[in-house]
Amino acid sequence: MITTDICIIGAGPVGLFAVFEAGLLKMRCHLIDALPQIGGQLSEIYPHKPIYDIPGYPSITAQELIDNQLEQIKPFQPTFSLGERVDALQKQDDGSYIVVGSEGTQIHCQVVVIAGGLGCFEPRKPELENLTTYEGKNVHYMVKDPEKFRDQRIVIAGGGDSALDWTIFLSDIAKEVTLVHRSDSFRGAPDSAEKVFNLAQQGKINLLLSHNLHKLNGNGHLETIHLTNKSKEEVVLPTDHFIPLYGLSPKLGPIADWGLTIDKNAIAVNTFDYSTNVERIFAIGDINTYPGKLKLILCGYHEAALMAQSAFKYVYPEQKLSFKYTTVNGVNAF
Amino acid sequence: MITTDICIIGAGPVGLFAVFEAGLLKMRCHLIDALPQIGGQLSEIYPHKPIYDIPGYPSITAQELIDNQLEQIKPFQPTFSLGERVDALQKQDDGSYIVVGSEGTQIHCQVVVIAGGLGCFEPRKPELENLTTYEGKNVHYMVKDPEKFRDQRIVIAGGGDSALDWTIFLSDIAKEVTLVHRSDSFRGAPDSAEKVFNLAQQGKINLLLSHNLHKLNGNGHLETIHLTNKSKEEVVLPTDHFIPLYGLSPKLGPIADWGLTIDKNAIAVNTFDYSTNVERIFAIGDINTYPGKLKLILCGYHEAALMAQSAFKYVYPEQKLSFKYTTVNGVNAF
Repeated sequence: MITTDICIIGAGPVGLFAVFEAGLLKMRCHLIDALPQIGGQLSEIYPHKPIYDIPGYPSITAQELIDNQLEQIKPFQPTFSLGERVDALQKQDDGSYIVVGSEGTQIHCQVVVIAGGLGCFEPRKPELENLTTYEGKNVHYMVKDPEKFRDQRIVIAGGGDSALDWTIFLSDIAKEVTLVHRSDSFRGAPDSAEKVFNLAQQGKINLLLSHNLHKLNGNGHLETIHLTNKSKEEVVLPTDHFIPLYGLSPKLGPIADWGLTIDKNAIAVNTFDYSTNVERIFAIGDINTYPGKLKLILCGYHEAALMAQSAFKYVYPEQKLSFKYTTVNGVNAF
Repeated sequence: MITTDICIIGAGPVGLFAVFEAGLLKMRCHLIDALPQIGGQLSEIYPHKPIYDIPGYPSITAQELIDNQLEQIKPFQPTFSLGERVDALQKQDDGSYIVVGSEGTQIHCQVVVIAGGLGCFEPRKPELENLTTYEGKNVHYMVKDPEKFRDQRIVIAGGGDSALDWTIFLSDIAKEVTLVHRSDSFRGAPDSAEKVFNLAQQGKINLLLSHNLHKLNGNGHLETIHLTNKSKEEVVLPTDHFIPLYGLSPKLGPIADWGLTIDKNAIAVNTFDYSTNVERIFAIGDINTYPGKLKLILCGYHEAALMAQSAFKYVYPEQKLSFKYTTVNGVNAF
């Protein structure tokens, strides 16, 4: 049994910063993450991609950010269970919790912080027979590394911002981009839609509106996508890669059974301390929602700071919290 | 007349980051600040001091942070009026504002963002005759550079966290530290109070509890501080420096007349978009307050991001805002 003050579910940038804010208040953290490495989606999906909106960094790669954050929390000696999902949450008589991981790890803690981020979501998939056959081969639900598609023929499906943005982005890289959408108008940003229409007019992409995905064909690898148009005629698209971008749906796993209020596919929290409706359970970062919510890492940092102030009363019920500035007091290691 | 989308009052770290978040949404900013240089209190008070709680920076000096933030907002070409206070705010018939500076600068804008930070506060001063005579000489209301006090005899007055923290900090640097407090218990953090009591017991500081400041004496420079104890006897303390630390009180200047709701010495905002009670006026950073408020730079960054989303509707009333990630879309310069 691991004993800690706060069990953080998710070892992405927001979970890591929670360790720092908790540490300043003398609270220890254990992090559990289903991924085999620290860093969440940043390390998993786009380690070498630059991020431009971390305050104070004109540009930093995702992996550098994670590395810097690990350095920042070193004084607080966080511990990790990686490659392990959360299976269960057991409430104890004294109000504390035991978090049980899929590998059998048990973590006894006073407070649970869910910082699962995008890891708690999964792509929405089109209903197509044999789709799963091509997953991990040439069907992709997100663009991890655009270079993979250089000089390839790709088909993107969808009508939201992701579909539009990647169509625009990949039109410069791929040999041929076809965007398929079942409707004749887009849900995404008007200026992105306009760019896509312009690219189609200039012959830089193929745009197939009012077309439905019908079936997939291939031999091991996906080779052709079969569509139907408004007149129910079949259109066959040979392709090297198929990228359906229909957004994400939450995949909370056992967390869905904890009695948390779910709103707009996320865990509802209040903005006082980013606590959920269940006592001692907080949710920070992309997994939560509240009026005005933006899914930005920098917002998760703020949420982590306020969460820590409130978590303190569960870890040190007898003590009065006093707020200190690191510029005056420094960072005191454990 | 300067014409811009957003006029930001205060060019500290939070005001600067607001330029970035506004810029991502194609809104231009002009900043006005009473200080002669960019950077707010960070550049003014502690440019060379390390900050430890900027996410992703284990340590960064205040000036480096400001420099990096300036680099980050370069694509958005912010303009500045430095060394200029805000004198007036003139509401226009169409809802927009003209901000008038003390040097006569007029800034026409759709949205006003108050990011005045600590610059909107002033120290509370003890009521002592001739106190102002010694200001700028050897009476100080904040510790800008602790090295100034090396091997000096200093007297600190106050009973809150600042007084306690600086007593502890300066006990290592100064030749002699005396802490004077009118009560016999402290308002500050219990563990800081305990440290101060220990230092007094070890003879490392002089602790004068239940003593009141009575008068100051000196010839040009302050030379002696006269106290009275419980028995109304006079105690005379020769000193090289006097540091009364009684906290801050707001000094909003003309902003106090704008009809903004003031709460706990700060401007009340909601956490949806950090707007004030007056339409098109937002307040972000240390100048605002809301349930859970922490006066941290990183919280101001979050507030700036949410503010920008909401300010958009005043700058582009006809357009639908679409939220984009810089990691996908990059940063598009003006």
